[in-house]
Amino acid sequence: MDLKKKVSIAVVKRLPRYYRYLYDLLKMDITRTSSKELSVRMGITASQIRQDLNCFGGFGQQGYGYNVEFLYKEIGKILGLNNNYQTIIIGAGNMGQALSNYGNFEKRGYKLVGIFDVNPNVIGKKIRDIEIMHLDTLDEFVKSTKVDIAMLCVPHDQTPTVADRAARLGIKGLWNFSPMDLKLHHDVIIENVHLSDGLMVLGYKLNEKMIKESQKIEKKQKR
Amino acid sequence: MDLKKKVSIAVVKRLPRYYRYLYDLLKMDITRTSSKELSVRMGITASQIRQDLNCFGGFGQQGYGYNVEFLYKEIGKILGLNNNYQTIIIGAGNMGQALSNYGNFEKRGYKLVGIFDVNPNVIGKKIRDIEIMHLDTLDEFVKSTKVDIAMLCVPHDQTPTVADRAARLGIKGLWNFSPMDLKLHHDVIIENVHLSDGLMVLGYKLNEKMIKESQKIEKKQKR
Repeated sequence: MDLKKKVSIAVVKRLPRYYRYLYDLLKMDITRTSSKELSVRMGITASQIRQDLNCFGGFGQQGYGYNVEFLYKEIGKILGLNNNYQTIIIGAGNMGQALSNYGNFEKRGYKLVGIFDVNPNVIGKKIRDIEIMHLDTLDEFVKSTKVDIAMLCVPHDQTPTVADRAARLGIKGLWNFSPMDLKLHHDVIIENVHLSDGLMVLGYKLNEKMIKESQKIEKKQKR
Repeated sequence: MDLKKKVSIAVVKRLPRYYRYLYDLLKMDITRTSSKELSVRMGITASQIRQDLNCFGGFGQQGYGYNVEFLYKEIGKILGLNNNYQTIIIGAGNMGQALSNYGNFEKRGYKLVGIFDVNPNVIGKKIRDIEIMHLDTLDEFVKSTKVDIAMLCVPHDQTPTVADRAARLGIKGLWNFSPMDLKLHHDVIIENVHLSDGLMVLGYKLNEKMIKESQKIEKKQKR
């Protein structure tokens, strides 16, 4: 990956979508595609798609388009999937258990290697062959096992402490499900999940639709 | 809300973030802010913030900046929060239960009014005073209760059928947690949650960091 140009976060955020759509094409045995065809499927303009992919050097051939498998693999590389990331989940409540059962992460190359909690009722229980361990054993575990990413599903008030501990243990990426913008002073990359943001976008669209419909009715009444 | 200009989805997706940050300012008793100050907090350029807010008519005053409470309320209106949206959850597995317990939705004005499942082991159980009901009673429930949004947390293979049923019952918004781009022919607004996209963005950033670090080491070795 050429890192001379800084790739904007908006482009980076679209990469997983490209990856998903290309995977679907592969499953349908489609070997070749174009920015135009992808555009129709994905609801992004063809020129945006070409611009996005050009950030990483292109991948297309004039008159041929894109080789689906090649592009899929290249985007996978850009997303770092060749690093075989290993993940743990801290907090085996409903959200932690939902994530443990979410097979899609594995399909994307993220391997779940450990689940941790402090609740004696869940410790020892297995989810997809992984035993839930006591959080006290985390330090020991991280010393003997490669852990790249910790998914934090602990209660709100415990999140900063747990995050700090994970970062001190050398875990480089934190995926935080607690509804807060977690910030740490360590050299660690944090992605905060704000579930309610998606719900609010849905609410915006519903509202926009309602306004449009009432404007239509008003217009009709004026005639 | 003025809907003559089409607001881009990128702007819409930033609105919930503005709303969250303004809420934090309110909690800290900060009554006045500027695009510059918001810019530092949010990691977006001040000019981007002004542009975004101008899509809806501005809200700022030259030399004064923004009144936090006013801006917070206005963005709430734009997000449709004045509609007092009512939601149901279909599927009370781990993800459904995690969402039921997620108090943040309520804080944002989304009221959970029903939870549905088909599993006899969970039906009758209460989550935050809401009883889990059998999915068979959904039609009846929707006839007597205003339901704007259904959160779909059912297994992958059942998602299209359940979504179709909800849409036919007149539910206008679907928030889909199954890892698929749900599409329906009904007049319904769908937001698909792709949890793994966020994880992959984290993976990209980790990869980018690793590449930069190895490039630094290479440079040092060349000297």
